[in-house]
Amino acid sequence: MVIFIKDVLLNGEKTSILIENESITGIGKNLSMPVSGTYPDSDNDTKIIDGNGLAVFPTFANMHTHAAMTLFRGYGDDHPLQEWLNQWIWPAERNLDDDIVYWGTRLACLEMIKSGTTLFNDMYFFPEAAMRAVHDSGIRAMIGFTGFDFFNPESADKLKKDISDWYDNYSKSEFQNSKLMIPVVAPHAPYTVSGDTLLWLADFAAERGMHYHIHMSETAGEVTNSIEQYGIRPYIRLEKLGVLDRCGDRFIGAHSLHLDDDEIKILGQHRAAVVHNPNSNLKLGSGYKFMFNELRDAGVNVTLGTDGCSSSNNLDMLEASKTMALLQKGWRGDPTAMPASEAIQVASANGFKAAGLNAGKISVGTKADLLLVNLDNIGFVPNNDTLSNFIYAAHSESIDTVVCNGRIVMSNHHVNDERTIKDEARRVVQKLLCK
Amino acid sequence: MVIFIKDVLLNGEKTSILIENESITGIGKNLSMPVSGTYPDSDNDTKIIDGNGLAVFPTFANMHTHAAMTLFRGYGDDHPLQEWLNQWIWPAERNLDDDIVYWGTRLACLEMIKSGTTLFNDMYFFPEAAMRAVHDSGIRAMIGFTGFDFFNPESADKLKKDISDWYDNYSKSEFQNSKLMIPVVAPHAPYTVSGDTLLWLADFAAERGMHYHIHMSETAGEVTNSIEQYGIRPYIRLEKLGVLDRCGDRFIGAHSLHLDDDEIKILGQHRAAVVHNPNSNLKLGSGYKFMFNELRDAGVNVTLGTDGCSSSNNLDMLEASKTMALLQKGWRGDPTAMPASEAIQVASANGFKAAGLNAGKISVGTKADLLLVNLDNIGFVPNNDTLSNFIYAAHSESIDTVVCNGRIVMSNHHVNDERTIKDEARRVVQKLLCK
Repeated sequence: MVIFIKDVLLNGEKTSILIENESITGIGKNLSMPVSGTYPDSDNDTKIIDGNGLAVFPTFANMHTHAAMTLFRGYGDDHPLQEWLNQWIWPAERNLDDDIVYWGTRLACLEMIKSGTTLFNDMYFFPEAAMRAVHDSGIRAMIGFTGFDFFNPESADKLKKDISDWYDNYSKSEFQNSKLMIPVVAPHAPYTVSGDTLLWLADFAAERGMHYHIHMSETAGEVTNSIEQYGIRPYIRLEKLGVLDRCGDRFIGAHSLHLDDDEIKILGQHRAAVVHNPNSNLKLGSGYKFMFNELRDAGVNVTLGTDGCSSSNNLDMLEASKTMALLQKGWRGDPTAMPASEAIQVASANGFKAAGLNAGKISVGTKADLLLVNLDNIGFVPNNDTLSNFIYAAHSESIDTVVCNGRIVMSNHHVNDERTIKDEARRVVQKLLCK
Repeated sequence: MVIFIKDVLLNGEKTSILIENESITGIGKNLSMPVSGTYPDSDNDTKIIDGNGLAVFPTFANMHTHAAMTLFRGYGDDHPLQEWLNQWIWPAERNLDDDIVYWGTRLACLEMIKSGTTLFNDMYFFPEAAMRAVHDSGIRAMIGFTGFDFFNPESADKLKKDISDWYDNYSKSEFQNSKLMIPVVAPHAPYTVSGDTLLWLADFAAERGMHYHIHMSETAGEVTNSIEQYGIRPYIRLEKLGVLDRCGDRFIGAHSLHLDDDEIKILGQHRAAVVHNPNSNLKLGSGYKFMFNELRDAGVNVTLGTDGCSSSNNLDMLEASKTMALLQKGWRGDPTAMPASEAIQVASANGFKAAGLNAGKISVGTKADLLLVNLDNIGFVPNNDTLSNFIYAAHSESIDTVVCNGRIVMSNHHVNDERTIKDEARRVVQKLLCK
C-alpha cells in the first residue's frame, strides 16, 4: 500500500509525507504526489489524504495491558482490592473461554485504535485467541503467555510445559510470520512465581530472543514482603537470580513504582524497560511518586501503559500521557517537570524501542505508525502549540486517522467492524459475568 | 419549551422525563408523551427525544474559570510560573478588548457545552463582554468583577468606584433580569488586595446578596507569606477581617489547597464553598493533597473547577472529575476514597448549590440542567456500571445532548454557531498574541 499525506502539519510546519509498504519513505514540502503507474502493484491501493486541517503525530505504544479485561470495565469499581479480586474478578474469570477472550481483545483493539495506539504489550489468558483478535484488528501486539506457580513444584512443571507447548504451537501457526505479532514470556510477578521458575523462564526467553514482561513493585507491600521473605527488595532479588542479566533490554517491568536508588541503578545498567501506569496506580491507591527523572537519568527505558480496564477503566494512552505529565509536575512541585515533548516520547518512541521496533517518530525510514488529528477539534482551538494541545487539551475524539505498519486502520474516526465488535462484546460479557 | 425524553437510562433503569419551561416536572416509566394541544403556547416548541441508547446525568458546574483565557490555550506551556506570567501572559493581556473577551468567552462556553457544563463561575476582565457572550451561548454563568489594589489606596478607591459603576450599569442592563446570569464580586486574592478593600467588597456583596469569589491558598508560598506578614494563615485572616462572616455560604474560595485543621473548621462553620481545581494544581506544581474528606466532614461545600485554559488547558469537567477522584484515591492510598457517586455530586450538585440553584440532580422540581450520553460510545461498552463508565472511562465525546434551564443547547454533539465561534476565536487570538 502507498499513502500520500499532502500538506499536513508536522512540528508546526506544513509538509507532505509518503508511506510505501510499511515505512515512511519521504517527508518534504515539495514531495510529489504518486502518479498512476508509479506503483503498478499498488495502483488500486494508493491513498491520497488531504492533510489540510490535520496534524501528524506518532501513534502510542501501550506497554502494559490485560486487553480482554476491557469486558470488566466498571465491574466492581470503588471496592477494596482484595474484596474486588475475591468477590468480583476471580469468580468471573473462571468463565473465560476463547470466544470471550477473542471478543474482549477485539474490543480492546478497537478502543486502542480509536485513541491512537498501534502497539500494545499484553498479559492475559488464552493467548491464541488474543493473537487471532490482534491479527483481525490490524495493529501490533506483544502477546504474553502469563502464569503463576505459587511456589508449588507441580504447578511450576505445568507452567513450563504449557509455555513450551504454546511456543511450539505458535511457531507452527499462521501468526509465526506475522510482522505485527511478538510472542512474549510473561510471568505474573515475583510474589506469585518461584525464583527457580522466574529464572527458567528467563532462560527460555533468552534462548528465543523473546521479551520478558512481569509485574514489579506495584505496591509498597510487595517490597516489604520481599524484604521480610528474602532480605532484599524485588529488583535486587531479580538481579541476584540472574533474570535481569538474561533479559537485558528485553526486560519489561510493569509498574516499577516503589524503587530505591540501587534498584534504579541496576535497571539502568541492564538497559531494562519499565512501564508507568499512572491512572491504574492512582485508582488502586498503589502510589504516585513514579521516579521518572531518576529512571531516565539512569538510562532506563521508561514507557507508558494503561493497565487493564478493570483497574484503570479505559485504554486511552492520550489520557494516560496527560495524567503522567501532570502527576510528575504535581508530586515534584515543578511545573517544568516532564514537558509535553517528553510525555509523547515516553508514550510512543520509548515503547516501540522496548519492543525492538523503529517507530514512534515521524521520520524517513521509520515504520509508518502514525495518526492524524483534526485541528478543528475544540482542543486545538486556538492552536498556539499543536503538541501542547494534543497532550494537555485534546481528547481521542480529535484523532481522525490511524496508520499501523503502513496500513490505514481508522479513517474519519471510524473503524471497520466497529458495530460488530461492540455487539459481540456485549454478547460475551453476559457469559463472563453470569454468576 | 417542552421536552419529553422517552425511555432513557436513569440510575440503571429505563424511564421517561418531562421538562416544562425551566424545570423537570415528571419522571416515570409510564409518563405519557405530551399530545398536541397540551401546551398551546409551546406546540411549535415541543421536542420529543428518543432516549433509547442514551443515559441521563446532571450537567456540570465549573466553579472556577477565567473563560476568555481559553484563547491562551497552550501558550507558554511548561515554563516556570513567574517567567510564564512576566514574559507570556501579562504582555498579551495588555491587548485585551471587548471583542477578544467576547469571542474568548464564546469559545469557552462552546467547549463547556460540548463537555456537559451549564454553569460556570468566572473571574476575568471586561465582564460586560463576558455577559454578552454567556447570554448568546445560552448557559448559566456567575460573572465576577475582578480586581486588585496591590495595597495602594488610590488603586483601592478606583477598584471600589469601578465595581460600583459596573454594578449600576448591570442593574440597568438587559442582563439584569436574566435567569442565567449572576453578577459576582471577585477580588483576586488576599495577597493582591488589601484587607480594607477585601472587607469593603464583602460588605458590598452582602448588601446586594452577591457571591464573593476569590483565589485562596493555592500555593504553600502564599500561606508562608501570610504567616510572615500577618502572623496568621490566609483563611484565619479572612475570618478576622470579617469577610467570612459577611459572606457565609455565598463565599467561594477557589483552590483552598493548603489548609490546616483550624481553617477547615472555620470554613465549615460559615458553610462556605471551596473549589478544587485538580488539573491546574498538578500542572502548575501547586500541590495535590486536597483535603476533600476533611472539608466535606466539616460541612464545607466542596465544588470542582477547571481553572482557566492557560493553566489547565481545557474546560472539561468530566476529565476534571476523573482526575479529582483518582487523585483522592492516589494520595490517600485508598481505592475506596471518593467513589464515582461522590465525584459527580462534587462536580455537579455542589456547584449548583453554591450558586443558590436547585439543580445538579435528576429529580422532579429541580431546574432542567441535564445531559444525555450515547451508550454506544466505546467508554460505555460494555455497560456494567453506567455512572462508573461516565466518570472513569468515557470522554466528553460521548455527550450527545445538553439541556440548560429547560432549553436544548446541544444536540448530536453539535452546537449552533460552532463554526463561527471557532473562526472568530482564531481571528481574535491574532490580536491578543501580537507582540
